Amino acid sequence: MTRYKLTMAYDGHLFHGFQIQPNQRTVQGAIEEALMKLTKGKRVVVHGSGRTDAGVHAKGQVIHFDYPGKTIPAKNMMLALNSLMPTDTVFFDSEIVDDDFHVQYSTKGKWYRYIVDQHHFVDPFRRFYTGHYPYPLDVKKMQQAAQDLIGEHDFTSFAASGGQIKDKVRTIYYVNIQEDPKEKKIIFDFIGNGFLYNMVRILVAALLEIGNGKRPVDDFPRVIAAKDRQEVRGTAPASGLYLYHVFYDKVPTKYRLDVKNN
Amino acid sequence: MTRYKLTMAYDGHLFHGFQIQPNQRTVQGAIEEALMKLTKGKRVVVHGSGRTDAGVHAKGQVIHFDYPGKTIPAKNMMLALNSLMPTDTVFFDSEIVDDDFHVQYSTKGKWYRYIVDQHHFVDPFRRFYTGHYPYPLDVKKMQQAAQDLIGEHDFTSFAASGGQIKDKVRTIYYVNIQEDPKEKKIIFDFIGNGFLYNMVRILVAALLEIGNGKRPVDDFPRVIAAKDRQEVRGTAPASGLYLYHVFYDKVPTKYRLDVKNN
Repeated sequence: MTRYKLTMAYDGHLFHGFQIQPNQRTVQGAIEEALMKLTKGKRVVVHGSGRTDAGVHAKGQVIHFDYPGKTIPAKNMMLALNSLMPTDTVFFDSEIVDDDFHVQYSTKGKWYRYIVDQHHFVDPFRRFYTGHYPYPLDVKKMQQAAQDLIGEHDFTSFAASGGQIKDKVRTIYYVNIQEDPKEKKIIFDFIGNGFLYNMVRILVAALLEIGNGKRPVDDFPRVIAAKDRQEVRGTAPASGLYLYHVFYDKVPTKYRLDVKNN
Repeated sequence: MTRYKLTMAYDGHLFHGFQIQPNQRTVQGAIEEALMKLTKGKRVVVHGSGRTDAGVHAKGQVIHFDYPGKTIPAKNMMLALNSLMPTDTVFFDSEIVDDDFHVQYSTKGKWYRYIVDQHHFVDPFRRFYTGHYPYPLDVKKMQQAAQDLIGEHDFTSFAASGGQIKDKVRTIYYVNIQEDPKEKKIIFDFIGNGFLYNMVRILVAALLEIGNGKRPVDDFPRVIAAKDRQEVRGTAPASGLYLYHVFYDKVPTKYRLDVKNN
């Protein structure tokens, strides 16, 4: 038995999310199907660093599994899986890890990216890969408001209800919002020790309200303190969200400089 | 009756090409269906500047049609069609033109772009939007060879057989090949007075052979003179091709500087 850790990208628009589900096309399901071809029918359980919802993409999802057969060099395992997997997924890094490595519990942080398309009409080439927001946005206001998110907070107001996780305290290390006026894109980056269900998409929805002047720029301390999902009703669409990177070493200092409360 | 000229982009990967066909999803079919909603059932024939094949994209396809109802301002026509059309198409320019304007016969030139993805494995986010070529390429060699394409030539060797057009003489005004090493992309631009069936995809296939050292860099004069499609057997995949711009005024001088024979 050999434990493999692999890093992958996927276009999420034709997947019903990462987690395996009966009669649905999922990323985990596609990987397990490919592995089954290698093991000649024996199921290998695939663990992901975290789930992504239907339509959400990954540029740096990390998985691990215990391969029951003879040890294969890490690079060859990657090549074999790439040749067996559908073209909306690709593995680009691979290593053999110790048995105490766990792709979910060993994480030190996660980086999510959200891309907003600002074209007046939906750009056909971006319809699956961005969230569309054609209204005016004041990026400086969003940047200013984002500073109030950084640090350790109870993010109940920014979590979809219905999750099983009771502890809603998370630390956001870094938020960056950059505009690409030529491409009519706005890119939101969030790095933290973990994110609640739908949290990034709810944060983006709230930031867009601030950028559009519908919500005061200094509203976040109040919203956080309220611990009430009703304070932020919107959720930005899945199509704009990317699991961008998972940290297994300490999150680099350059992404922690802004942390106030921790 | 009012003649409208509209400029549009489309993601071609879910279309069976531009030209209407029974029981196939086509761009022309989608536009005519939208127009039928405006005319309450009366068919309006849509003309395109040219056909694009299944899977080929457009960043600047141009169409015209004669609208039988009351004249609608050009911008409102565009807004109405955008709201009625599927999201893999978008109109971004619109004007009312004289009755003697014809989107196909009034063209002065066409600009096609071809994008090659050089990642080792297919990038999931580019699988529908590039042609994949993971082998080494010498861009300078391709640029050098491309100079032999410029000018007025009989391009029989670069045309798919079976077309009805007998005159295979076309003029290429401009070829530019640029590398984006950071993005692992190579972008081919071709501007000419017209292109034969599959010509751009065959040109790209031949240029890739030159870039990869499979064909001599000075081979094109010989290939052109041979007037034989067997000289270039390859055709680059449709997914990388974009109808980028159609010229209705004279092609700007900056794109004609290189023309030798004309």
